[in-house]
Amino acid sequence: MSNNILAVGSMAFDTIETPFGSHQKILGGSCNYFALSAQNFANVKCVSVIGEDYPKEHLSLLKSRGIDLDGIRQAPGKTFHWSGRYGYDLHEAQTLQTDLNVFEHFDAEVPEAYRSSPIVFLGNVAPALQSRVLSQVTKPRFIALDTMNFWIEGSRDALVDAIGKAHALIINEAEVRQLTKCHNLVQAANTVRSWGPQILVVKRGEYGAVLFDHGDVFSVPGLPLHDVKDPTGAGDTFAGGFVGYLASQTNFSLSRLTLRKAVVFGCVMASFTVQEFGFQELIDLKRHQLDERYQKFVELTEFHLE
Amino acid sequence: MSNNILAVGSMAFDTIETPFGSHQKILGGSCNYFALSAQNFANVKCVSVIGEDYPKEHLSLLKSRGIDLDGIRQAPGKTFHWSGRYGYDLHEAQTLQTDLNVFEHFDAEVPEAYRSSPIVFLGNVAPALQSRVLSQVTKPRFIALDTMNFWIEGSRDALVDAIGKAHALIINEAEVRQLTKCHNLVQAANTVRSWGPQILVVKRGEYGAVLFDHGDVFSVPGLPLHDVKDPTGAGDTFAGGFVGYLASQTNFSLSRLTLRKAVVFGCVMASFTVQEFGFQELIDLKRHQLDERYQKFVELTEFHLE
Repeated sequence: MSNNILAVGSMAFDTIETPFGSHQKILGGSCNYFALSAQNFANVKCVSVIGEDYPKEHLSLLKSRGIDLDGIRQAPGKTFHWSGRYGYDLHEAQTLQTDLNVFEHFDAEVPEAYRSSPIVFLGNVAPALQSRVLSQVTKPRFIALDTMNFWIEGSRDALVDAIGKAHALIINEAEVRQLTKCHNLVQAANTVRSWGPQILVVKRGEYGAVLFDHGDVFSVPGLPLHDVKDPTGAGDTFAGGFVGYLASQTNFSLSRLTLRKAVVFGCVMASFTVQEFGFQELIDLKRHQLDERYQKFVELTEFHLE
Repeated sequence: MSNNILAVGSMAFDTIETPFGSHQKILGGSCNYFALSAQNFANVKCVSVIGEDYPKEHLSLLKSRGIDLDGIRQAPGKTFHWSGRYGYDLHEAQTLQTDLNVFEHFDAEVPEAYRSSPIVFLGNVAPALQSRVLSQVTKPRFIALDTMNFWIEGSRDALVDAIGKAHALIINEAEVRQLTKCHNLVQAANTVRSWGPQILVVKRGEYGAVLFDHGDVFSVPGLPLHDVKDPTGAGDTFAGGFVGYLASQTNFSLSRLTLRKAVVFGCVMASFTVQEFGFQELIDLKRHQLDERYQKFVELTEFHLE
């Protein structure tokens, strides 16, 4: 039996421009992408807030997937809205606007029934909210935290404080450089470790991911895809695959090989998200497709057979 | 017994600026880096030209390594000089100046004794010189070609013509995008294949390399290093490991696994070059160090063990 995951993150509208198309106010947010990804592996319990303008049908869809929404509040006002633009390399988003809206007064109350969840994912929201969620959980075995430049720039101290309580930091390459003020990843990993987390997962977009786990280093390249349209949500989807795979182990373990496979499942999940705008690809996904794509990563990277 | 490699490339002075130091007129050039890398695996016969200012001691050093210099002419005038600058990401060089000097009137005559070499490496020189070398070889079994933005911008037609005669194109990621006018690597590989070469090796600096071989795709990440000082020559060193490993096979083969291991040996060799300015690291290298670092790539990337 898999372990429950408590996840805090945003439910959002995204407005996205890429060279391959533009979309106005499509459904997004770290909680959505994470939950739709992680639910392939384990039960997900969401903590988030939506405005009055949020479509009820989407909540029904999440529920139909078995995602627990009891921790999602509806508040007066508008749903969180993020607007960003990508160039041809689709690597780093230029944020055009961040409207926190209902997130501005969100208190991140964790329902009683969620508090004993062994696995906690602190998605990309204000560091103070991440810490507030942590203060309510009773017996976390594994805490993973994701963040972005918006918080590194605006709330660095609170962020480093929240990171210090996590077992794993999951973060973009450019952002870990910004956060640690260090270009070299090996050195940046040492800095992160000195704050608390023994595990650092660096997301590299089309270049895959690197895992620093105590003294061990693992790296997997991205899967070269014929069409890549929109990387929005890829990082949260990656986190869903990574944390989800770990949670799916009946005998929860952070062994070298388990962590490595979790990183590959992160890349597997992200590779689906980038193929289309929004999370439609995730919603339509069948379990056998995950395993087939995992196998593609095996084929992509193997070279040491005799 | 390994197969001989005929290599054409530059013998140069490099002037390099990076955030980690500056060096004036140190020894460099694609022929030097390639030969010092490939000689770990096979015999290398060089075709190049030097000016009157080139240090004889360096030629003696190359000879002492068993590198064949009969195809290196000394011409009146100055040695080729390249000057470039890197930013903190050490990813792409900004060329400050390219003084062809003696290369301007070089005719790339291949010594009689070189002409039957089964393996040919056309290093980063003018595409017309690359084609001229090819016109003199009598029974090439494998031809690999490297190039750079300077020739893509100034001699595109001659370059595409030379590429059409090669079995493998080895090229930087940004440069294959520039050459094919296509951002997506899978699509760029299709374009390159339509010109002739069935093998495309894309060098990605710290992100490793991707191999497109007919329908097969292989990718290996770069080895995260604690200190990276200067990427100059890393691409030629990579080519030396890749072509050298292929040449070292007694029964020459381009099998899936052989090509993949060759790419990893390319990354192994490049990982030494970037640790210091110039090619001192390469000169001091012992064979067991190559095998130890190859093993590090195995440890870096394995995840599918049971």
